[in-house]
Parts: sequence; C-alpha cells; structure tokens
Amino acid sequence: MKKLAAATLITLAASGAAYAAETSNGADDLPVAASSLAMVAPALEKYRKETLAGRLWQNGALSTRDRSIVTISVMIARNQTAELDQQLASALDNGVKPAEISEIITHLAFYSGWGNAIAAANVARDLFEVRSVGVDQLPTASPTLLPIDRKAEDVRAASVQNNVGPVSQSLVDFTGDVLFKDLWLRPDLAPRDRSLVTVSALVASGYVGQIPFHLNRAMDNGLTQEEASEVLSQVAFYAGWPAAMSAVPVAKGVFEARRK
Amino acid sequence: MKKLAAATLITLAASGAAYAAETSNGADDLPVAASSLAMVAPALEKYRKETLAGRLWQNGALSTRDRSIVTISVMIARNQTAELDQQLASALDNGVKPAEISEIITHLAFYSGWGNAIAAANVARDLFEVRSVGVDQLPTASPTLLPIDRKAEDVRAASVQNNVGPVSQSLVDFTGDVLFKDLWLRPDLAPRDRSLVTVSALVASGYVGQIPFHLNRAMDNGLTQEEASEVLSQVAFYAGWPAAMSAVPVAKGVFEARRK
Amino acid sequence: MKKLAAATLITLAASGAAYAAETSNGADDLPVAASSLAMVAPALEKYRKETLAGRLWQNGALSTRDRSIVTISVMIARNQTAELDQQLASALDNGVKPAEISEIITHLAFYSGWGNAIAAANVARDLFEVRSVGVDQLPTASPTLLPIDRKAEDVRAASVQNNVGPVSQSLVDFTGDVLFKDLWLRPDLAPRDRSLVTVSALVASGYVGQIPFHLNRAMDNGLTQEEASEVLSQVAFYAGWPAAMSAVPVAKGVFEARRK
Repeated sequence: MKKLAAATLITLAASGAAYAAETSNGADDLPVAASSLAMVAPALEKYRKETLAGRLWQNGALSTRDRSIVTISVMIARNQTAELDQQLASALDNGVKPAEISEIITHLAFYSGWGNAIAAANVARDLFEVRSVGVDQLPTASPTLLPIDRKAEDVRAASVQNNVGPVSQSLVDFTGDVLFKDLWLRPDLAPRDRSLVTVSALVASGYVGQIPFHLNRAMDNGLTQEEASEVLSQVAFYAGWPAAMSAVPVAKGVFEARRK
Repeated sequence: MKKLAAATLITLAASGAAYAAETSNGADDLPVAASSLAMVAPALEKYRKETLAGRLWQNGALSTRDRSIVTISVMIARNQTAELDQQLASALDNGVKPAEISEIITHLAFYSGWGNAIAAANVARDLFEVRSVGVDQLPTASPTLLPIDRKAEDVRAASVQNNVGPVSQSLVDFTGDVLFKDLWLRPDLAPRDRSLVTVSALVASGYVGQIPFHLNRAMDNGLTQEEASEVLSQVAFYAGWPAAMSAVPVAKGVFEARRK
Repeated sequence: MKKLAAATLITLAASGAAYAAETSNGADDLPVAASSLAMVAPALEKYRKETLAGRLWQNGALSTRDRSIVTISVMIARNQTAELDQQLASALDNGVKPAEISEIITHLAFYSGWGNAIAAANVARDLFEVRSVGVDQLPTASPTLLPIDRKAEDVRAASVQNNVGPVSQSLVDFTGDVLFKDLWLRPDLAPRDRSLVTVSALVASGYVGQIPFHLNRAMDNGLTQEEASEVLSQVAFYAGWPAAMSAVPVAKGVFEARRK
C-alpha cells in the first residue's frame, strides 16, 4: 500500500507538472494511462483528444467546473479509480476547491457507499500531498450548518415516513438525522452542487427510480434544464451510454412536469 | 502483485494488532484509510465514529455478526476492495468463522460474479496469513451436503424451467445442478446466513426484481422481518442510500404478502 | 504504479509460460489467484475446474472465442480487474486478435464508461508487452470505416431524435456522430462481435431497458438465438446470476417477437 502510494506520488508529481503547462479539460491522461492508450488503443487516444477534450469539454452548456464535478462524481460512484487521480487534479485546475472535493467524497459516502468514498479518499490524499493541500483548506468535521428549509423538509420527511416507515424505521431516522438535517446542510458544498453530485451518481449507477426526486431538487437548487441535459452527455462518456440513455425517460418526465 | 501483497501484509499486521486492542464494530479504519480521512475528509472520520461505530453498529436489531456478514457481502458484491481487508478482519472479530468467510466468497462468486470473488479471495488470503488461518480451518471442496427440501426445490425448479427454459436451458440446468442442488447445500454456511448474503448482494447491486424470491427464502430460512428491515439500513451505509431506497417497495410487498 | 506494473509483468510472464503448456479455457487462474483460492476457498478451485473449465467452457453452443469475448466484456463493464489479465491472455489463446481486444476496450469506453476502458487498457498494456504485441498489430486511430447501412441508420436516428431529442440534443448528436457513424463502423471488430460485446456489457450491468434494441441488432448482425441463449449462461458465471436472470424476460420478448 505504502509502496504503491509512493509510486503514485511520483506519477502524480510528474503529471502535476504537466497540468501546470496545459489548460485542464479533464480529458488529459496521466503519463501511464496515456502510454496504455498508445500501446493498446490508439483510437481511444484520438477520441480523448478530438471528442472529449476537443468537443465535450468545450461545450459551454455546462461549465468545465461543473463537468469536473460530474466526472469525479461518476468515477467515485462507479469506483472507477484508474483515472480518478487525474480527474481530481483537473477538477482543482477547473476551480473545484479542495474543500469541495472533500465534501463531494463525504457526500458520496452516503450516496454511493462507504467503500467508494474510502477508495476516493485514498486517491485524493496522494493528490492533496502533491498539491500541498493542508488540513486548513478542508472543511471541519462539524461546521455551522446552513439553515434548513423547514417547509420542504417537512414534506420530504412526511413522504419518507409514509413510504419507508412501514419497512424500516431506522432507515427513515438515518435519512432525516444524518442526510437531510446534517449532510445536505454542510456549508462547504453549495446545495446546487450537492444536487449535481447526487444526480450524476444516480444516473451513473442506474438508480432511475431515485432520479425524479433528486433532479427536481437539483433544479429547485438552481440547476438549469440546459445544464441538466448536458449532464446526461457528460455522464454518457464517463459512465457509458446505457446509463445516460436509461435516465432519459425519467428526465423527460421531470422536465415536462415542471413546465406545467 | 507480490510487492503489493507484501505491503498489504505489513499494513494488516499493524491493524491486526489494533484490532486486538479495541472492540471491533467494523467501522474502524486501517491506519492508511484513517490517515486518508484525516487528510481529505475530517467529516467522514466524524461520521465513522459517531454514526457508524456509535449508532448503526450499536443497534441491537441486527447482531454485529450479521452486520459484518451484510457489510462484507456488500463490499464483495460491489467490488469495493478499499476497505474489504478491514471489514473481513472485524468480521472475524465479530464471530464470523474463517470457514464462513470462505463460503461467503464462494457463494458470491455465483451471485456477484467470478471476478468479484477472486478479488475478495486475494484480500482474504493476506488476512488469513496474518491471522494464521490454516487450510484446516476451511471447508473442504466437496463436503457432505445438507439434505435438500425436495418439495420446495421442486416448486423452484418448475418455476425456473417455466420462466427461463424457453430462453436458456443451460442456464436452467446450471441453476439447479450448481446453485440449488450444490452451492446452497454446502454445510459451512447456514442457509439463513447464505440468504442474508444473497439479499445483501441483491440490494447492494440494485437487482430489485430478484429480491422477492430471495427475501422470502431468507425469511423462510429464519431471518426475521425486524432483521430484514435493519439489513436495509446497513446496506444504505455501505452501498449507498439509492440502493436501499430502491429496495424498499419490493421489501414492503414481501412483508405485506407474508402477513396474509 | 510502475512498481505494480513491474510486479504484474513478472506474474504474467510466469503465467504466460503456463498458458503455453495448457489449453486455454479462460478458467485457469494466475498463480497468485490460484493460491488465493487454495488458501481461502478450495470450493472455488473445484468449481473453476469442474464447472467452469470442465462444463461451461466445453459447451459448443458458444465457441471458446465467443466465450472469451463475453467474459472480458463482462469484466471490463463491471471493472473486475482482478482476473482480467488472465482472461485477456486466454482470449488471445482462444483466437481473439490483439486488434480485436483493442477494439473491444475502445467500444466499451462508450458502453461502460471511459474509466473502465482506461483500467482495462492498463492491464492489456502489460499483457501486450509480455506477448510482444507491437503497435503494428493494433488498429490505427482512423481506419477506413465499414459502409453504413443507411436505411437502418435512418430508422435508428429518427427514433433517438424523437425519444432523446427533447431531453438532450447533444446526447442525440454524440450518439450519431461518435457511436453509430464512427465507432460501430470501425473495421477491426466485426459488427456481430461488436454487438456481442455490447449485449454482454448490458446484461452484466443490469441495463435491461437497453437490451431489446441491442439484442435485435446482434441477431441482425448474425448472432444466433442459440448463441444468445448461451451468452446468458456465460454472463451468469462472470457477472453473477442476478444479472443473467434479470435479462431473461427481455430476451424472451425479443426471441418471441422475431419469430412472428
């Protein structure tokens, strides 16, 4: 583990230098991955440059900062650690603060599982060392929480109590106490960004039944329909077409319902 | 591979000592992971101590042994190897026998895929070395099988023949010969625990359509509704909320049908 | 990273020798994995020999070459890297050309996500070095594409425009420009094999809603119903029973509709 971390550190140091030299579009590979593409799939190197870096990441319908948030959320939700170090590095280059990366990993511990968050934290730790990100740049464990929207929370709580209560009261209680009255109110990741992370993870993992609530919440939190539409394209490339295509019908239902 | 295994061995040896020192609630991190949390997400360290160790694992509705079985099943089913070594170690501390861990990995080779089991076996091998678990403590390859419930098996076989036969007869044959007339009858993991492993993997992987048959089988095998309800909370933390929430409606249907 | 690659190289070199010595049925483990089974789950070693190597891979309903294509597609789609090196090695032994492996990884970058493809490319790179597979054996980045079936493409394009257009026009555009007018027309992987890869990935990942279109396309491209049925059994062993069983109803629907 230590040996590997050390080796990764070296690789990252090298790539860290590379990042300084070029604009970061999140689609630049680490030396090791780049050589893998050259020696295994030259076509992927072409798609990386022309389609990802040259077209997807250039589309202003979603900012590069948002694209980085979607991409690292997909990779953490799907436990895709192979390129996570590089995507976290370009996220920093694209304006995602270390404190926000810390909160994204924390948020996904609850939305994609504890083990996924631990794997991501192990990768982020090496990057933070390379980028000299100190604990002073991270959110504290117990910050002053954002004020809660009591009305919306009462509606949510009643709905979950009604639907989940008969099956698992402890799940109802944890959902309120830990997620909506605590995690979602942590101040170092804006509610709109927290929703972007959640929706990206849901689409990337195929949990279509959970999308309506969170896509509506995301749009209530400020995500525009144009941005939400573009999130589907970003997820298509990083989680695969089937994940994005499976989310289209439910997204359509949400968009139509909000127009009325 | 060898180098990595060696490094892991050292890490585990260290943590192995730690485990001897503290009660094991399955939510204690390896030194490396713990430092990742401290250096990346102090909030996760707080949730680990207060919410996981302090609340979830303390809830007597499900024993710590059962919680360990659910947790390692989730991690194997989702290929979350980052913390699997530590969860396997605490499973041993919580009374899950090495022979049972061996059977859980074998069972999940069929319920979450061969590659997931190989990854888990690689992690367990290092732990078994650290804990001096010898082959004499493992189930033999071909033990005397438990007696089969002929009546229940005939019903299952007829149903699968009817539904799957027209699509893939070889899948029907393997399901009977390898799973229900062999794997499920292996004596070193109780049918109730085998069902607990299966249901945990199904919920963690989002295969809701497969839950009714196996949740009913689990309850027929002795899992109580209170325990099944608590499994959903345990899975929520280790596989993510969307997995648990997606399983709620089908679990509700099973609970209601059994009341009639 | 480098250290790990080096270690893997050694392991592969050793196993590479092993492969020369025995027929490859894709169910032979690397020394390290084999020792894990012996030291953790002797039952899995028995299933590997008797059920996988002795029965599944011997069933002529699907060729060993096709079984290798299905197996590596499942492992890449599910990010199961633990045994991917060995399965890629036996794929070569079973007649899957290095150029085809390169295209399979490229294809799955779009059907299971960029990060999954990068992880697979890292593994394949080490194997290609061991097997002395040079860049001259790989497809070029921009080869002459196969002729497109204009009529079928117009139908597909109209359907996607109609269903996806109102939700994400950029997803519609990428689907046409990058997938069906480019990726699917790359000549180094036959359309029938490309469909086999796609269907295997869809079943392995539980995207049942996407199966009808691609299973029909696979059969239009030459996959027989007998082969498609056997794909379900192959996927059951490598992605787990729940994945295969969840695909049975939709496969049945496709088979019945094509009979009319």
